[in-house]
Amino acid sequence: MNSQQVHLASRPEGTPSADNFELVSVALPELKEGEILVQNTWISVDPYMRGRMIDRKSYIPPFQIGEVLEGGAIGEVVQSNNPDFPAGSKVSSMLGWRSHFVSDGNGLTLLPNTPLPEQTFLGIMGMPGMTAWTGLFRIAELKPTDTVFISAASGAVGSIACQIAKMHGCTVIGSVGSEEKAQYLLSLGVDATINYKEADNLSQALADAAPQGIDVYFENVGGEHLEAALNNMNDYGRIAVCGLISQYNATEPQPGPSNMAMLIIKKLKMQGFIVFDHWAHYSEYAQQMGQWIAEGKVKYEETVYQGIDQAAEAFIGLFEGKNKGKMLVKL
Amino acid sequence: MNSQQVHLASRPEGTPSADNFELVSVALPELKEGEILVQNTWISVDPYMRGRMIDRKSYIPPFQIGEVLEGGAIGEVVQSNNPDFPAGSKVSSMLGWRSHFVSDGNGLTLLPNTPLPEQTFLGIMGMPGMTAWTGLFRIAELKPTDTVFISAASGAVGSIACQIAKMHGCTVIGSVGSEEKAQYLLSLGVDATINYKEADNLSQALADAAPQGIDVYFENVGGEHLEAALNNMNDYGRIAVCGLISQYNATEPQPGPSNMAMLIIKKLKMQGFIVFDHWAHYSEYAQQMGQWIAEGKVKYEETVYQGIDQAAEAFIGLFEGKNKGKMLVKL
Repeated sequence: MNSQQVHLASRPEGTPSADNFELVSVALPELKEGEILVQNTWISVDPYMRGRMIDRKSYIPPFQIGEVLEGGAIGEVVQSNNPDFPAGSKVSSMLGWRSHFVSDGNGLTLLPNTPLPEQTFLGIMGMPGMTAWTGLFRIAELKPTDTVFISAASGAVGSIACQIAKMHGCTVIGSVGSEEKAQYLLSLGVDATINYKEADNLSQALADAAPQGIDVYFENVGGEHLEAALNNMNDYGRIAVCGLISQYNATEPQPGPSNMAMLIIKKLKMQGFIVFDHWAHYSEYAQQMGQWIAEGKVKYEETVYQGIDQAAEAFIGLFEGKNKGKMLVKL
Repeated sequence: MNSQQVHLASRPEGTPSADNFELVSVALPELKEGEILVQNTWISVDPYMRGRMIDRKSYIPPFQIGEVLEGGAIGEVVQSNNPDFPAGSKVSSMLGWRSHFVSDGNGLTLLPNTPLPEQTFLGIMGMPGMTAWTGLFRIAELKPTDTVFISAASGAVGSIACQIAKMHGCTVIGSVGSEEKAQYLLSLGVDATINYKEADNLSQALADAAPQGIDVYFENVGGEHLEAALNNMNDYGRIAVCGLISQYNATEPQPGPSNMAMLIIKKLKMQGFIVFDHWAHYSEYAQQMGQWIAEGKVKYEETVYQGIDQAAEAFIGLFEGKNKGKMLVKL
């Protein structure tokens, strides 16, 4: 039995390209007592994985060259020597870009019995959805009266953050990179959109979209977006720093915002977070989000690439804005 | 009766110079019922006043050209038609750089009956001391196990922050601009000092001074200091943003730190504050600090210029690091 796996062939300099990745066929061992064979059905590609391609100390160890790219995946147990994971059950793992794997069950989670499609546990019911909820409530202390600015607003995290903030009563402004994505956000009920690629001056565009100022900024992008947000924050505003996708492929250090003084003048709080630190609250999130989905209050989009040989292309597409909602690879 | 006053003659471009200020003699009105005449004895010069010289919206209205420079001052009531402020009593005000003023008492505070010199209410017992305490405890949530980095550490705020953090049990590293100031900090019990003017690489100098990393950064400076702090923060570190003195005289926007990603990687909180928002806690601070001073646990330095005609020079000296401890003008 062989597993098709995508390995890191070399560390990207700047934007990743196909030659940084290598599709490899690896023989799997025979199942031992207590072990299961899982066939992955969906794998996740996420922007944070770019950070793990850099050889540095971080909250999670870097990927190693010649090793498989780990990350979220959903699969089906196809052979089982472990009564906790019977054949036919669905599991999520962090074992990433591989078609099959053998496991003793350690680190795997059985998917709950739900009518939701299994891949939602890589998106709205999984890490990206939990990230949106965590950033808004546990970091930015969202209040119903807040005006909220969300960057990368049509992405996996952003599109959920927009809808959660709207349901909480907030006024929501989202920034996106195309007119089509702007229309998508408006269909989700967002109050105003900014196409940052068309804006001569992002700070002024935000001032026009939010003349009342913004109370919360959900930061996914960095650079000019952060500078624009700082200029438009109201007193005691909160910035949840979730991602800085504009900088992930930079080959030179990128200067921070030139208006850091706004932190003092407006008494702002800016806080970075990693969703895994908040995972103890996942069941609270999942129950709430499951109910919202069942009630038809939340929509989610998926952008799907077919086949493990497309995983690298799907991942690279994240940095070109090719996804609407969650970027996924179906095996 | 005339009052000698220092007016803003023109808005500084870059570092303030003597010609931005004008000494003016202004006739005072006769005292009416309920009014008092105050003769100032000490006036305060503080870095935040530079921000008020810029014509912009902020937490406090900008100074106007041709108007007196307002700020902290201590004076004695020399004539009184107001029983709440009998002649001979000492008052603090925010009325700033003038020798005398007439007031109905509104906005004035009687100094408490204490053996402390009156000018301490412009320093350790006043706004700068309260700023140090607020930043450490109410913003940075100081814990005894923290390693704390304090920039502009020999200044009015920094030198008190260093001592409070030491008394709380913390390891303290201070950055200063001269060897003499470094020696002063060591005499206050600070664990290590960095002379930023001598450091080839401030980030490396901080790593050498705090091999265990830093948990709290008390930010008074900005620029390279903030970048160095971000590089050396431990997970869940807190940055209290009190001031950015390195940028106050900049004529061009100054780029922020190029390592904002550390906010996410290390899950940091960075929060700006204005001490006046926390003034409801002043009596708690004053009681604690009064006791520390009485017990000999805290020292304070003053750098004193003589005469109201020296106020502008004292103020300009703040940006050249001419003060050790609180910069004051004695009238």
